Amino acid sequence: MTTIKTIGLLGGGVIGAGWAARAALTGHDAVICDLDPEAERKVGEVMANARRAYARMTLAPLTDIGTIRVVRSIEEAAACADFIQESLPENEEVKIPLLARADKVARPDVIIASSTSGLLPSRLQSGMVRPERFVVGHPFNPVYLMPLVEVCGGDKTSDATKQRAMEFYRAIGMHPLHVRKEIDGFIADRLMEALWREALWLIHDDVATAAEIDDAVRFGPGLRWAFMGTFLVYRIAGGEPGMRHFMAQFGPTLKWPWTKLMEVPDLDEELLEKIVAQSDAQAGTASIRELERKRDDCLVSIFQALRGHDFGAGATLKSFEERLFKFAGATAAPSAKPGEPLCLIRTRVDPAWVDYNGHMAESRYLQVFGDATDATMRHVGIDAAYLQAGMSYYTVETHIMHRREVHEGEPIHVTTQVLGADDKRMHLFHSLHKTADDSVLASAEQMFLHVNAKEGRACAARPDVLARIKELAGLHAALPRPEAAGRRIAMPNR
Amino acid sequence: MTTIKTIGLLGGGVIGAGWAARAALTGHDAVICDLDPEAERKVGEVMANARRAYARMTLAPLTDIGTIRVVRSIEEAAACADFIQESLPENEEVKIPLLARADKVARPDVIIASSTSGLLPSRLQSGMVRPERFVVGHPFNPVYLMPLVEVCGGDKTSDATKQRAMEFYRAIGMHPLHVRKEIDGFIADRLMEALWREALWLIHDDVATAAEIDDAVRFGPGLRWAFMGTFLVYRIAGGEPGMRHFMAQFGPTLKWPWTKLMEVPDLDEELLEKIVAQSDAQAGTASIRELERKRDDCLVSIFQALRGHDFGAGATLKSFEERLFKFAGATAAPSAKPGEPLCLIRTRVDPAWVDYNGHMAESRYLQVFGDATDATMRHVGIDAAYLQAGMSYYTVETHIMHRREVHEGEPIHVTTQVLGADDKRMHLFHSLHKTADDSVLASAEQMFLHVNAKEGRACAARPDVLARIKELAGLHAALPRPEAAGRRIAMPNR
Repeated sequence: MTTIKTIGLLGGGVIGAGWAARAALTGHDAVICDLDPEAERKVGEVMANARRAYARMTLAPLTDIGTIRVVRSIEEAAACADFIQESLPENEEVKIPLLARADKVARPDVIIASSTSGLLPSRLQSGMVRPERFVVGHPFNPVYLMPLVEVCGGDKTSDATKQRAMEFYRAIGMHPLHVRKEIDGFIADRLMEALWREALWLIHDDVATAAEIDDAVRFGPGLRWAFMGTFLVYRIAGGEPGMRHFMAQFGPTLKWPWTKLMEVPDLDEELLEKIVAQSDAQAGTASIRELERKRDDCLVSIFQALRGHDFGAGATLKSFEERLFKFAGATAAPSAKPGEPLCLIRTRVDPAWVDYNGHMAESRYLQVFGDATDATMRHVGIDAAYLQAGMSYYTVETHIMHRREVHEGEPIHVTTQVLGADDKRMHLFHSLHKTADDSVLASAEQMFLHVNAKEGRACAARPDVLARIKELAGLHAALPRPEAAGRRIAMPNR
Repeated sequence: MTTIKTIGLLGGGVIGAGWAARAALTGHDAVICDLDPEAERKVGEVMANARRAYARMTLAPLTDIGTIRVVRSIEEAAACADFIQESLPENEEVKIPLLARADKVARPDVIIASSTSGLLPSRLQSGMVRPERFVVGHPFNPVYLMPLVEVCGGDKTSDATKQRAMEFYRAIGMHPLHVRKEIDGFIADRLMEALWREALWLIHDDVATAAEIDDAVRFGPGLRWAFMGTFLVYRIAGGEPGMRHFMAQFGPTLKWPWTKLMEVPDLDEELLEKIVAQSDAQAGTASIRELERKRDDCLVSIFQALRGHDFGAGATLKSFEERLFKFAGATAAPSAKPGEPLCLIRTRVDPAWVDYNGHMAESRYLQVFGDATDATMRHVGIDAAYLQAGMSYYTVETHIMHRREVHEGEPIHVTTQVLGADDKRMHLFHSLHKTADDSVLASAEQMFLHVNAKEGRACAARPDVLARIKELAGLHAALPRPEAAGRRIAMPNR
C-alpha cells in the first residue's frame, strides 16, 4: 500500500475546497479539478479560513502544509492521486459518468470516495470497472473542522476499501462513522432533514421566525447535542429507572397530533420569500465571511472545551494532536542559528483570551509562554515516547513582566533564549512580541527541573536532549542578557 | 410590585428540583411541594450537582445561596411564594385542578408559571379565578444550567405577566424565548420530537444503533447547533448567493422519499426492547449520576467557550455574570480578621485545567491566582461601576513558585496576604493550598499598578479603596513574611 500523499479532488465548491484545506493542513498535496475560472480564488479563501481556525484550534506542531493546485480535467486530478474524493453536484447523472472516468485513470490501489449527502453508493459505483474501491465518505461543512464523516459502501464495495478509507479519515483528524446499511440520506442528514421539515412548517404557519427557531435550538437542545445525542440525553432524563422508564413516560407522546410531519410543506414562492426575508433579518449586516469566521471560532472553542473532558469532538481533537506530536517527535528539529533566539510560536490573540476590559487575561500570557516551552522541548528532541516514559521538564519558578497591552486578533510571537542549563535544570527567558512592530509585550523567566514522574524525583535529562540544550545555551550566550532576568519584586521604597 | 424572593415550586421531580437549585443559587428561597417521602434526598442530590456545576461555571460572586424547603401541600407552597412554578406530571387532569388550588391562595400579584413541555396554556389556566397571571415557562433539563425557557401565554394571559415572567427568568440567568402562538409542543420540543421520530425509525429498520445515531449528531450537526440554529447554518452553506440560493439547491430534497416520517413507528415491545438494550450498551458501566456530571461538565465548558465569543449561550452566561458583579459591588464586603490572610477563592481542579500528564497546566495556576486578585479587588470595594469608569489595578510583575502537584477534582483554595501598598501600587502574595491538608501547592507574588485605562496612565486608587487596602496591609503585617517573597530566579551556581 502506497503512503497517501496526493489527494485528487473532483469538484472545488464549498465541500471540495474544504477537503483541500483539510488535506493541505494535514500535510497532503491537493489537486482539484474544477472548471470555474474563479476556482483558485475561492479555494484560497476557504484555505485562509482554515489556516486561521487551525492556528486557534491547536498548538500541536502541524506537519508541513501541503500544496493546492487547480486543474481542468478529471483525468489530470485522478491520475496523480493516492486517494480520490469526489464533491460534484448532487446529481447521479453528473456523478456516475465522471466517477467512471476517474476510475479509468486512477492507479488500481487508489480509493475513490464520494462526498454525496444522500445518493446511494451502489448506484454511484455502477459505471466503474473497479467498483470495489468506491465508497461514500460524507463530510459536513466546514469540512476542515467538522469531525464527522459517514462512511457507507455499496453492494460492490470491498471491506478493505471501507477500512482503509476510515483509517485515512482518522489520520486527517476526522471521526468516521460506519453506516452499515445503504440508505438515502445516510444517518445525520435524515435527522437534520426531519428537524428542517418541522422548522419549515413552523415558519409556514407563522408560529415562529427563522431567528426564533434557531434560538430554540441553540439556547436549548442544541447545547446538549454538541456532546451527547438524543438517546443519551433522554436516558439521563429518565433518571435512575433508565431508558425503559423514559420510553414508558414519553413514548405515548409519539401518538399526539403535535406535528405536521406527515405532510411536506409546499415550497411555493410565498413560503420561499418568507424564509429568505427572515433569514436576511436574522443575519443583519453580517456577511457570509463574518458568519463563517464566527462559526469557526465557536467550533474551535467547543472542540477545545470538550478536549478537556476527552469527550465527543474533544476526543477527536485530542487523538489528532497526539498523532501530530508523534509525527513531530519522529522528525528532526531545525537547528538554531547562532546569535538568534528561538522563535517557535507564532499565533494571534484569541477572542476567548480576552477579559471584560478587552485585554488579554494574565493567565493567557503564561499559556502562550507554556506553549513556547513545549515547543522548545520538542525542538531539543523531547517527543511523545520521551513523555510517555515519564520524563519531562517541570516548571519550578516563573517571573513574568507585563510591559504593554495587547488586543484581540493581534498577531504575536514568542522568542526564547536559553540562559543556562545543567544536568537537571533548564533556565529559559521567553519574550512575547507584537508581530507588527516587534515590541515586547511581556516576558517570562522560567526555571525547569527535569523529572522522572514515575519515580517522583528529579533526574538528569537524556544525553542527546541535554547536548542540544547546552548547544543552544552556548549559541545564546552571544545574545545580550535580558535586563529583566534575575529580577525580584519589591515596592520602590524597599 | 414585590421583589421576588421566595419561589413556590409545585412538584419536586427532576424539573422541579432543577428549578429549586437554580432559584437557590441565584439567591432565592425555594419552597417545594412534593409528596414523595424521598423528595428531600432527591432535591439535595440535584442541588449538589448544581453547586458543583456553578463552582466550575463562574467565578463571579454568587449571591448568598437561598434555602430549599419541602412541604406537603400545594397551599403551603403557594401561599408564601412571590413567584410560582409548577412542574407536575404532564397530564391536564393533574395540572388544571392543582393550578386552580394554587391560584386560590397565592397573592394576587404573584405569577403562576407552568413547566409543561407540550400542554396548551389556555387549557391549563381554565380553572383559575385569575387566569391573567398564568403563563407557560417551559425549561430544559438540567434546569439549573440550560438557558432556554419558552414563554407562552394562553388566551387570558396578560402581556404584563409575560413581560414580568421573562424578566424574572433573565434575572436567574436564563434566555427566555417568547412563543407568540399557542401550539402543542411549543417550538423546541416539536423540533426535538421530529428528530426523535426519525431516530426511532432508524433503530426500527436496523439502519443504526442508538450509539451510532448519537455519534451522527454529536460529531456532526449537533456541534453547530450548540451556537447556531439550522437556518443560519444553512445560510452559510448557501455561500455568498444567500438563502434563496440554498433553498433552490436543497429545497427539492424535501420531495425525496428519504424519510418515513409520514408514519409513526409502532412502539411495540420488540422495538422498546431493542432501544433499551442499545441504550444500555451505549451507557456501558456509567451510572446516571456519572452521566449527569459528564453532561454538566461539558455544558459548563461549552458555556465558557462561547462566553469568549459573547455568542449564544455564552452571551447568556456573560450577562448573568454582569448582574452578579453588579450585585456584589452593591453589597458590603466582609471585613478581614486580624492575623489571618484573606481566603476568597475555594474551588476544585477542573478537568479542563489538566494537561496530557494529568497535572494542572501552569497557566491555570495563574488563572486561579488572577481570580484571587479579582476577589481581593472586589473585597476592597472595586465594583462594576469602578471598572466601567476605566479604573483598575493592572498586573505588572508576577513571581510564581511551584511546590507540589495537584490532580483533577482536588479541592483547592487561595489565601492572600497584602504585603504592601502605596497610592498607585498594590503588592500581594497569593498561596494556593490543597484544601485536604492545607499544604501549599504554589505561590504567586504580584505587583499591581493602579491605572486610568481611559487616559492610559497610572493614577492613585480612590481614597476608600486605598484605605481598605492599607487597612489590610496593616492587619497582614502581623503575619510572617512569606519565605518566597522577593525571590529571584537563578541557577544554583550563580
